[in-house]
Amino acid sequence: MTIYDISKKAGVSIATVSRVLNGSPKVKEATRKKIMDIIEENEYTPNSSARAMGLKAMRTVGILCADSSDIFLAKAVYYLEQNLQAAGYESILCCTGYNLDTRKNYVNLILSKKVDALILVGSNFIGEAEQENQYIKDVSAKVPVMILNASYHHDNVYCILCDDMNSMYRAASEMYDSGIHDILYLYKALSYSGHKKLDGFKAAMENKKVKGYEKLILRIPEEVSGLENIADFVSDYATKDHRFHGVIAADDELGIAAVKYGQKNGLSIPGDLSVIGYNNSMLTECSTPELTSIDNQLETLSECLVSTLIGVLSGREMPQKTVFSGSLVKRKTTDF
Amino acid sequence: MTIYDISKKAGVSIATVSRVLNGSPKVKEATRKKIMDIIEENEYTPNSSARAMGLKAMRTVGILCADSSDIFLAKAVYYLEQNLQAAGYESILCCTGYNLDTRKNYVNLILSKKVDALILVGSNFIGEAEQENQYIKDVSAKVPVMILNASYHHDNVYCILCDDMNSMYRAASEMYDSGIHDILYLYKALSYSGHKKLDGFKAAMENKKVKGYEKLILRIPEEVSGLENIADFVSDYATKDHRFHGVIAADDELGIAAVKYGQKNGLSIPGDLSVIGYNNSMLTECSTPELTSIDNQLETLSECLVSTLIGVLSGREMPQKTVFSGSLVKRKTTDF
Repeated sequence: MTIYDISKKAGVSIATVSRVLNGSPKVKEATRKKIMDIIEENEYTPNSSARAMGLKAMRTVGILCADSSDIFLAKAVYYLEQNLQAAGYESILCCTGYNLDTRKNYVNLILSKKVDALILVGSNFIGEAEQENQYIKDVSAKVPVMILNASYHHDNVYCILCDDMNSMYRAASEMYDSGIHDILYLYKALSYSGHKKLDGFKAAMENKKVKGYEKLILRIPEEVSGLENIADFVSDYATKDHRFHGVIAADDELGIAAVKYGQKNGLSIPGDLSVIGYNNSMLTECSTPELTSIDNQLETLSECLVSTLIGVLSGREMPQKTVFSGSLVKRKTTDF
Repeated sequence: MTIYDISKKAGVSIATVSRVLNGSPKVKEATRKKIMDIIEENEYTPNSSARAMGLKAMRTVGILCADSSDIFLAKAVYYLEQNLQAAGYESILCCTGYNLDTRKNYVNLILSKKVDALILVGSNFIGEAEQENQYIKDVSAKVPVMILNASYHHDNVYCILCDDMNSMYRAASEMYDSGIHDILYLYKALSYSGHKKLDGFKAAMENKKVKGYEKLILRIPEEVSGLENIADFVSDYATKDHRFHGVIAADDELGIAAVKYGQKNGLSIPGDLSVIGYNNSMLTECSTPELTSIDNQLETLSECLVSTLIGVLSGREMPQKTVFSGSLVKRKTTDF
């Protein structure tokens, strides 16, 4: 019996089983008991897991992410590590910052630590100009390169991503169909996935033949930081004859800022203003009312990435691009 | 001119200068301009920084943390990496989970990657039983061990921590002095720093001679998760003849749950109920009203840890224990 069998039998993710085996406090007691019961019934002991094969025999996977304090990236790294560990791989992580030049140095550093594969987390690893991506081609000649949440086609490069465009398209369409036809789109930076989300919003508005929707696309300048300040920025925008009864934001922080904008202006939520965020992060819960958000299936993506990697490392033919769809998780800032 | 000189001249942290050099989008435009102006005036070019000395000559520091998706730990890792990078060190990170047994394996893994020092992030690396800490003694015989936010005395082990007990003592005393004498203390797990915080609260109540304060110490059971559920749990507790006009929580999530408890029960905040959280994390902003919170000086701790490490690696005598005090950052959930 493997850890995969246990996760199937318990109806939970491999990461959850791994969390229980690692003594993480983040698992509900009922879930923990269920998993431990299955383990006992089937005489599986954590010692027989891949982790106990001995470190020397283990493979190490290098993970690069831009910034481990970004809650989206941190969550992705967490799921990847849990899945790698469950599959018997160790992982080491380097945080590169957002500068493409330093990336190359980090790739060299992590290769010098003898890793068997490289995982790039986040769409900011792909540059718009082709020469910016030469480092990916170079490293893929040495080890398999896995990319989470971006698409780049090359030999020995495998991409697992959420279809952000389609996810946003469907959420915007659903808000429109509920009767809200004036929707403000809020965003800050335009990374690869940022572009996809905006494209999805535009496509939905085009499809619904909404006139003048472009005027309700609002970029928050980089220097406007802090949720209260963003809320005030939106208030200013609204007083300049911009009317909207819905807001869709490119991330949950902006979504919460939109909720705060509504509250500052005496709007009832979702009565007068509906709000949808993106990422379905822990921030959704901190908002009052709790924020409806698009879930980009990070846990599923991470599991798929690791199983694809295992396939690649054992010499099997694996798909070079796997795309999942996001889903809308409805909470208290919408009533459709 | 070094990166340290720039940070002093600009009146910002080294981490901020490093963020600018790395092109991070998280720096305000005004700050970025100020730093770039100083760099230009003084003909400092990022290429002359330690980063450009060439990877081969660089030292690598291993960082271990339990769980990179915990926002407190993630922030600490981020600051450490920024400071290490600014000082010309590369870093690699392993996430160990909460099980002490697997820790030892991870220490061996990271040592096999040839690191010059080891940083343990978070108080959960120290066990209560002395034999649980043998792995720290073992590794300190090979490389210096730096511990962030916990205390452990041994040769070649250096601890940098926030005085959580004193920080909590002062916050609780300040709430009492503002006229709120019935204060609920909310916590979940008791790690090393969790114990210190609770001790600080108790000491403040003893000092103020508050009778029966023990009845207002509430542990949220592990299986009660989700802020709404925690808020309901507090409501149940309050209906059982427990009266309080203030809440101090051991972390910001619990603090926001307390705010939600107040709102569910029609209490005005801070009129009827004052709330203080702990960690001063990004969650404080997501709350409505914004949460007052104790700042444990994570950025200062991380800077101090890295400069201590640099001293140790260059053969200087450095203090084995450095303690900072936290400070109360007042927002909208308190009015004192």
